Amino acid sequence: MLERIRIVLIGTSHPGNIGGTARAMHNMGLSDLALVAPRCEPLTADTVSRASGADHIVHDARTVETLEQAVTDCTLVVGASARSRTLPWPMITPRALAERLPAELASSEARVALVFGREDSGLSNAELQRCHAHVNIPTNPDFSSLNLAAAVQVLAYECRLAWLEAPHADVPSETPADQALASHQELERYFEHLERTLVTIGFHDPATPKQLMARLRRFTLRARPERTELNILRGILTATEQQVERHD
Amino acid sequence: MLERIRIVLIGTSHPGNIGGTARAMHNMGLSDLALVAPRCEPLTADTVSRASGADHIVHDARTVETLEQAVTDCTLVVGASARSRTLPWPMITPRALAERLPAELASSEARVALVFGREDSGLSNAELQRCHAHVNIPTNPDFSSLNLAAAVQVLAYECRLAWLEAPHADVPSETPADQALASHQELERYFEHLERTLVTIGFHDPATPKQLMARLRRFTLRARPERTELNILRGILTATEQQVERHD
Repeated sequence: MLERIRIVLIGTSHPGNIGGTARAMHNMGLSDLALVAPRCEPLTADTVSRASGADHIVHDARTVETLEQAVTDCTLVVGASARSRTLPWPMITPRALAERLPAELASSEARVALVFGREDSGLSNAELQRCHAHVNIPTNPDFSSLNLAAAVQVLAYECRLAWLEAPHADVPSETPADQALASHQELERYFEHLERTLVTIGFHDPATPKQLMARLRRFTLRARPERTELNILRGILTATEQQVERHD
Repeated sequence: MLERIRIVLIGTSHPGNIGGTARAMHNMGLSDLALVAPRCEPLTADTVSRASGADHIVHDARTVETLEQAVTDCTLVVGASARSRTLPWPMITPRALAERLPAELASSEARVALVFGREDSGLSNAELQRCHAHVNIPTNPDFSSLNLAAAVQVLAYECRLAWLEAPHADVPSETPADQALASHQELERYFEHLERTLVTIGFHDPATPKQLMARLRRFTLRARPERTELNILRGILTATEQQVERHD
């Protein structure tokens, strides 16, 4: 189970935090690290020092340009966030997240991404809106910003506890094919198709969006669509487009 | 309750770890730090940098020569330890410790000390044997040594959760009106509208339904739609119908 949990760091500025993250991950038995557009050289003397013997995790990390690329195969994407900004999003606690993990990762194809933002500014709204849910580590409201590696430590610790407490640790079961959850990429393609169709039927004006797509994203991600369900929804969009095109 | 939990660091070598400990403590609402025979200057530029705004905790820390002096007023002393050495000692998990804290700290005179050892060699047997119990953070057996500040972070996080879950913690606020969930009746009207529209666009034939509506129901109900979300979805249906009617 733990090998299918990916830690994603976006726009990290300090190599020491990448090293500290690697140590926290290896301490808790996690190994899959992705770096999105790091704002520093990931592997420096500082990285190795803070990793304290876990720098192989940084060597093995995948470095990519966008969040999309880092989570394209993930069935659950959770962003670490102090609070939801413009639009409230499903918020869960680290413990509630951990309790969900054994079921989330029951299928051998399932992948969970835990996404952490920049040291100074966290995750952008666009990034937050690509997540199924946001996880908030409870903190002192007067001093709420955790060190990046410390935040990874807390969530990785919760992941390990969930794994230790799971009944049959490490025997992924096969999910029947028609119940497989849609991947991040399939969801994004659906959202593109949806937006196109809403423009076609005159419901949505991208020039004055009024958070329409964000609201539809939030609603849809909350439902955790299965692949077959997404196929139905895309079928509806295609039928709608054909109706409009036939007449225009 | 949190103000009566003391973090005790014994023989710390790296000022950065003292700073990281201060930040982790302040993040979680702890404030009482004691340093026993530190093996470094506690307050350096490294301390301030890693404390990231929480260095007042180090300024206010008491520095003493022995563990005895640091915990003399404490009613419960718990040592962080990878394992009991010569003599097996009561071992508890961080979570079990946290669950005990509200009762342990019910009296205003009660004090709990969480004791952390040296970066290289942990706590001595003599120190461990001065503790009521030992707390062990579950780790990867192949790489079990946590960074000192990371270990403090995990236990401080558990302390905060215990405090938040204790009976007198602040109650979460009410749900804003625009987040009210849709009623059963509103949902049923939506499903009627959806089915009508799907027939209109030629996607759905009620004579050979193939569980289409059941699948769309299951998907939608799983998301627990809010009233405002349902209004958006009905707006999309209406726009679709108008497109088709305009042309037929």
